[in-house]
Amino acid sequence: MSRFYRRPITTPAAGRAVRNEVRPFVSLLSDFGARDPSAAIMRGVVLAIAPDALVVDVSHEVDKFAVKDGALLLWCALPYLPVGAHVAVIDPGVGTERYGIAVEVARGDVLVGPDNGLLLRAADRLGGILRAHLLENGQYRLPVVTSSFHGRDLFAPAAAHIALGVPIEAMGRPLDPTRLVRLAWPEAEILDGELVTAIVYLDTFGNVKLEGSVQHLIDALGPMEYGDPLELRLGGRERPVPVVWAETFGRVEPGQPLLYEDSYGRLCLAANQGSAVARLRLQDGQSVSIQRA
Amino acid sequence: MSRFYRRPITTPAAGRAVRNEVRPFVSLLSDFGARDPSAAIMRGVVLAIAPDALVVDVSHEVDKFAVKDGALLLWCALPYLPVGAHVAVIDPGVGTERYGIAVEVARGDVLVGPDNGLLLRAADRLGGILRAHLLENGQYRLPVVTSSFHGRDLFAPAAAHIALGVPIEAMGRPLDPTRLVRLAWPEAEILDGELVTAIVYLDTFGNVKLEGSVQHLIDALGPMEYGDPLELRLGGRERPVPVVWAETFGRVEPGQPLLYEDSYGRLCLAANQGSAVARLRLQDGQSVSIQRA
Amino acid sequence: MSRFYRRPITTPAAGRAVRNEVRPFVSLLSDFGARDPSAAIMRGVVLAIAPDALVVDVSHEVDKFAVKDGALLLWCALPYLPVGAHVAVIDPGVGTERYGIAVEVARGDVLVGPDNGLLLRAADRLGGILRAHLLENGQYRLPVVTSSFHGRDLFAPAAAHIALGVPIEAMGRPLDPTRLVRLAWPEAEILDGELVTAIVYLDTFGNVKLEGSVQHLIDALGPMEYGDPLELRLGGRERPVPVVWAETFGRVEPGQPLLYEDSYGRLCLAANQGSAVARLRLQDGQSVSIQRA
Repeated sequence: MSRFYRRPITTPAAGRAVRNEVRPFVSLLSDFGARDPSAAIMRGVVLAIAPDALVVDVSHEVDKFAVKDGALLLWCALPYLPVGAHVAVIDPGVGTERYGIAVEVARGDVLVGPDNGLLLRAADRLGGILRAHLLENGQYRLPVVTSSFHGRDLFAPAAAHIALGVPIEAMGRPLDPTRLVRLAWPEAEILDGELVTAIVYLDTFGNVKLEGSVQHLIDALGPMEYGDPLELRLGGRERPVPVVWAETFGRVEPGQPLLYEDSYGRLCLAANQGSAVARLRLQDGQSVSIQRA
Repeated sequence: MSRFYRRPITTPAAGRAVRNEVRPFVSLLSDFGARDPSAAIMRGVVLAIAPDALVVDVSHEVDKFAVKDGALLLWCALPYLPVGAHVAVIDPGVGTERYGIAVEVARGDVLVGPDNGLLLRAADRLGGILRAHLLENGQYRLPVVTSSFHGRDLFAPAAAHIALGVPIEAMGRPLDPTRLVRLAWPEAEILDGELVTAIVYLDTFGNVKLEGSVQHLIDALGPMEYGDPLELRLGGRERPVPVVWAETFGRVEPGQPLLYEDSYGRLCLAANQGSAVARLRLQDGQSVSIQRA
Repeated sequence: MSRFYRRPITTPAAGRAVRNEVRPFVSLLSDFGARDPSAAIMRGVVLAIAPDALVVDVSHEVDKFAVKDGALLLWCALPYLPVGAHVAVIDPGVGTERYGIAVEVARGDVLVGPDNGLLLRAADRLGGILRAHLLENGQYRLPVVTSSFHGRDLFAPAAAHIALGVPIEAMGRPLDPTRLVRLAWPEAEILDGELVTAIVYLDTFGNVKLEGSVQHLIDALGPMEYGDPLELRLGGRERPVPVVWAETFGRVEPGQPLLYEDSYGRLCLAANQGSAVARLRLQDGQSVSIQRA
């Protein structure tokens, strides 16, 4: 019986009505791209092992090799997905000494992928890591493991078996969760009248996610009112950029930039019906200092 | 029990054999893009509420903010999907005063999304609107409704509950269907020996959908035979463009332009194995006058 | 009852545990693109006929009209998918005299699509063709068959009915499998100390699949050791290109090119964390000669 059968769901999506899950659940995220067959092959591998599984693609269009982007997307998405086994493959080190791991978190999910930091921000957000194991048991992988497609040969089969109820300790030896590889990640720094942070994701609208929450902003600048004028200093740029603290896009003129709290509670830069990335020439990783104008 | 259980299906796809539907059905369309996690999150939200739901993505790659394109894609797709709840989110006004609505149509479907005209052409095509209600009941949304992601917080949960059998009057107050926001949309104008129309969609092949049907063309130009030479006058362009009225792409030389009846009964401009958009430098909204050569 | 119910699965993905399939299975591949509604419409048509079907998208982002690319992607993917009915539509000849066909293969699958060579490499890889039939029976298509969307009107309905258990001989007259249209395809040629082959696919990472396997390479150059230096001569290029025979990407410096055995057993050119296509300016169909440096 699936480890995820009849498990009460506590995602925000389930809202008030706690209910029972009825099928093993597997999600997939990768940088494989929608054109190539790799994503469908992972889905096929899961379904060949767990034919009743409900399989959801989180994204296969993550920028190539962008482990940080993948980590952020998992952080955004997994709280809204059913409890299940989540495969993530952004894996420039495939076939080298980096480990394949399964990580069980407090919400009950198991995250499966490379030990390169991809899984850990989402794991923290799902309540933290209970335990981590190596993927080394030949029973839960394909008969041949190639050196370039662990998503198919190692991660998808492990996740399918885990979704069917195989405990993660059957996958291989335990790993000390504190020894797992962690990504370098910027932190929001609260100064006197200034929040110093950095860009962590550029989305397909040209909106830009910053590290940090509204609480960070309030701690740095004091209570905020919609309409408050602010000034951004962007790394590598001379001139400060004026923006408005706004509730949502349509509260400023089309094309105008705004700073707002995105739907995940993050600080975010956008332009109404336009691209903040293009308008302000923003770059991933760029430092951003926020002060009152 | 789902409102869509055991409902006889009358889509063209079901053909002769009327049969019973067995699972709640939800479709999703948006401009969220395949890279970002938003589409998967809407799917997760539906599945958390309606774990047995069959969820189909219509498209998440609609051009950003292109409400008209989304309206046309829904018009094309929904007649071929099972009867169900259909979420559509192209929503530049998210978080402002525009309403969130649920619209029930004669075929039995419920369309859910913003009141910005996105839903109405498809609603007309599914037999017309029976009734429309506001999405204002807190029971059928996520516990927190943010100002920038109503797809997740409002529309997906409403659709999931509706697919499970909640009647749309439970969503909120009724709206007069004639007061819903309608998009400006070009009309095909029949003159003496001339059909004046406009481009309404550029597809990924570079084919171009015009407003109007073959009947419009016949009413303007008289009976049509495959091979008839025609002349197009394009808005903002001096020189007329010669095209042939043809049954399908392969009936003209590779690269040559043709006017044909597309698979939805619309007039369409294409180039055999090439892009009519690139070849004829066509633009969305451009006026097109069709005469015999 | 579905022809695919309770059929023992022998895909590599099922690994050791032979098991029973529980739902009709349909896969979809096309060049329709993720933005347009065509792929979702094919899925809707399948579900309207076979509501219990499990439908998996292989890819809808195949380059427009690239029949060869589609053939290669099917060859890669189908062995890892459950046994089922597989629809493939890359069909520049839609609406002309080319046939619509259903091809049954030794593994038990049925491939459905145009008779333009798209299906045959995958058919060979699934054990070879047992029989082929025309799609001409009006019972297994939509009521109206247009001249430009056979994926919706002809192929998807046929596949759905086949997945539900309709035998392929009910589709129409038999065709001699040796008379089906075959694609021109390069062959790997083993010379004395030289393997002459060609590029057959450029993937989204910028990796490049060559025709031929490691065995071809060994037959031409003798036993291979990881780290062996090689020299490529590319069609239309003067200067030879040095590469290393390597186990996987991470075995060479970032940006450096390598030749390796890909996860399907093919020879493949790549650059570690970069694009071999961009770095070496490679083109589809280009000839490649491999010698020792």
